[in-house]
Amino acid sequence: MSKRYDIAIVGSGPAGLSAALNAKIRNKEFIIFGNKNLTNKLVKAPKINNYLGFFGLSGENIKERFQEHLKVMDIDITEERINSIYAMGDYFALMANEKIFEAKTVILATGVEYTRPIKGEEEFLGKGVGYCATCDAPLYRGKTVVIIGHNKEAEAETNYVSEIAGKIYYVPMYKGSYDLNDNVTLIEDKPEEVIGDLKVKKLVLNNSEIETDAVFILKDSISPGQLVPGLKIEEDHIAVDRLMKTNIKGCFAAGDCVGKPYQYIKSAGEGNIASLSAVKYLDEISRK
Amino acid sequence: MSKRYDIAIVGSGPAGLSAALNAKIRNKEFIIFGNKNLTNKLVKAPKINNYLGFFGLSGENIKERFQEHLKVMDIDITEERINSIYAMGDYFALMANEKIFEAKTVILATGVEYTRPIKGEEEFLGKGVGYCATCDAPLYRGKTVVIIGHNKEAEAETNYVSEIAGKIYYVPMYKGSYDLNDNVTLIEDKPEEVIGDLKVKKLVLNNSEIETDAVFILKDSISPGQLVPGLKIEEDHIAVDRLMKTNIKGCFAAGDCVGKPYQYIKSAGEGNIASLSAVKYLDEISRK
Ligand SMILES: Cc1cc2nc3c(=O)[nH]c(=O)nc-3n(C[C@H](O)[C@H](O)[C@H](O)COP(=O)(O)OP(=O)(O)OC[C@H]3O[C@@H](n4cnc5c(N)ncnc54)[C@H](O)[C@@H]3O)c2cc1C
Ligand SMILES: Cc1cc2nc3c(=O)[nH]c(=O)nc-3n(C[C@H](O)[C@H](O)[C@H](O)COP(=O)(O)OP(=O)(O)OC[C@H]3O[C@@H](n4cnc5c(N)ncnc54)[C@H](O)[C@@H]3O)c2cc1C
Repeated sequence: MSKRYDIAIVGSGPAGLSAALNAKIRNKEFIIFGNKNLTNKLVKAPKINNYLGFFGLSGENIKERFQEHLKVMDIDITEERINSIYAMGDYFALMANEKIFEAKTVILATGVEYTRPIKGEEEFLGKGVGYCATCDAPLYRGKTVVIIGHNKEAEAETNYVSEIAGKIYYVPMYKGSYDLNDNVTLIEDKPEEVIGDLKVKKLVLNNSEIETDAVFILKDSISPGQLVPGLKIEEDHIAVDRLMKTNIKGCFAAGDCVGKPYQYIKSAGEGNIASLSAVKYLDEISRK
Repeated sequence: MSKRYDIAIVGSGPAGLSAALNAKIRNKEFIIFGNKNLTNKLVKAPKINNYLGFFGLSGENIKERFQEHLKVMDIDITEERINSIYAMGDYFALMANEKIFEAKTVILATGVEYTRPIKGEEEFLGKGVGYCATCDAPLYRGKTVVIIGHNKEAEAETNYVSEIAGKIYYVPMYKGSYDLNDNVTLIEDKPEEVIGDLKVKKLVLNNSEIETDAVFILKDSISPGQLVPGLKIEEDHIAVDRLMKTNIKGCFAAGDCVGKPYQYIKSAGEGNIASLSAVKYLDEISRK
């Protein structure tokens, strides 16, 4: 049996990090998923003035402070993208590509995704369009697959799928150098539309077209409703009460994903609350 | 006519300060009431580890960071204790001893008071027991008054009342040196009980008794229900929604005063939300 954590935190922005600090202080066994670079929303901010205690710093500077804070508290981020979370009764199963993690409670701190869907993306979802290439890879053995990658992590996923698929294309949505297997064809062009009938037939880009059986779009985050089946969503955000409880027992949420205003310290404050609520819930179930 | 502010923030803990930063950034005319020392709850904390970005610092250290942040943003704290706030329809009147301030919106960030009432305090409230000595001073011209002071600011209030009262005693609830007029009698003893029949007759202390007409208890904060008549209170805290709105239009609240957990970054996050909600409200009413 795999290890069962007390708390699994999904997301490494201010909300997830603040939750992690409190889980650590409260001596809980926890795991935090995200990336070591924390969040693009910090990295990209030129100057931040409304995080009480920090002034005149760039997002990059504050990111480094947060990273130092994690380091002194001996908190390590697990670099995995969680694709689905299932409530199993007395625990949650978190699926990260080929791996499964188990936890008694979950804190969702996934932020909000600003990427608009491309034309046809929603129509063909589940009919060749998907958000987890490694999960569905076995379906495309020997077939053609396009992967639209929104971040560097998508490259490893592409390489993994390239070992199974017949032909594979990678369309990066970011600039940089790409670590791809030799059998991956790099296409630097802007995706416009997914076309098909019952199933995906091709991806139309700005300057080209690719005939394909599948299009995987690997974004920074998946909408919470897709991530956790059964989760209550209100006006595009996870519905929570003032203690950051969702409608699912043992599942809490914090940060941009629970609603506006989208702000750092608001997110960190909510992560703090969510974590203490999870601790309280754990203490209650252990007393039963 | 006195100046009418866009936002009046009551309290200078993390919640009030965070609200002030955002009011400043949003270019609103605002005033923040509290004390330059910010909050005892920072000063007294030996070490704080769960405020994301700060680690290994004492409350005193973090207080200094907050003060620097205010300084670079050119935010000044008005050292007045607000005793009552009245909703006047399209504005609020905030009473600070002899002064009145006006604002279109109010953010309550008063924290929670841990001081337990002394025996008889609640029974004789309004019958000789009060929380604002300067407000009620005219009633005690030539009479005997005891002031129980929980902070240094109570000394100035005592001196003011000493010019009106016949006989005045000061019972400090903190250590230090006291700046009191010559006609104030200092009593260093622990108050135990207020005794009377229809009205206050005496204050019983651990080692002594004082016959008196009035007992004023000057605490760090007044319960929010007393501070703002008509404010909805739920389980001892100000009732707010997720956008930090109270039941009174234009009145918002944040921090410990709206509920547990009692935490710095939770309070700062809520101050952030309350401030942006006030800004939004101001924009809405100005468009009408
Ligand atoms: C350019 C810019 C400037 C900004 N400036 C300010 C400002 O000055 N002040 C301010 O208060 N706010 C500002 N913001 C807003 C602020 O960035 C956000 O409110 C804040 O980052 C939200 O924090 P969060 O923890 O909720 O989510 P995020 O910061 O979005 O972090 C979520 C993290 O979780 C990861 N994640 C998501 N899903 C998964 C999954 N399934 N598995 C694993 N990991 C996952 C994401 O990759 C990401 O790293 C700015 C935003 C931008 C874009
Ligand atoms: C010893 C100690 C250690 C703590 N350690 C931690 C910790 O490690 N981590 C953590 O997250 N939390 C900690 N806390 C809790 C934390 O201090 C509080 O949650 C936080 O200070 C609440 O902030 P606030 O802005 O809501 O109110 P407060 O900090 O209480 O500030 C309210 C301020 O408003 C002023 N005020 C009130 N009423 C009025 C009025 N009518 N007019 C003018 N001014 C007014 C008060 O004098 C005070 O200065 C600790 C608390 C204590 C006492």
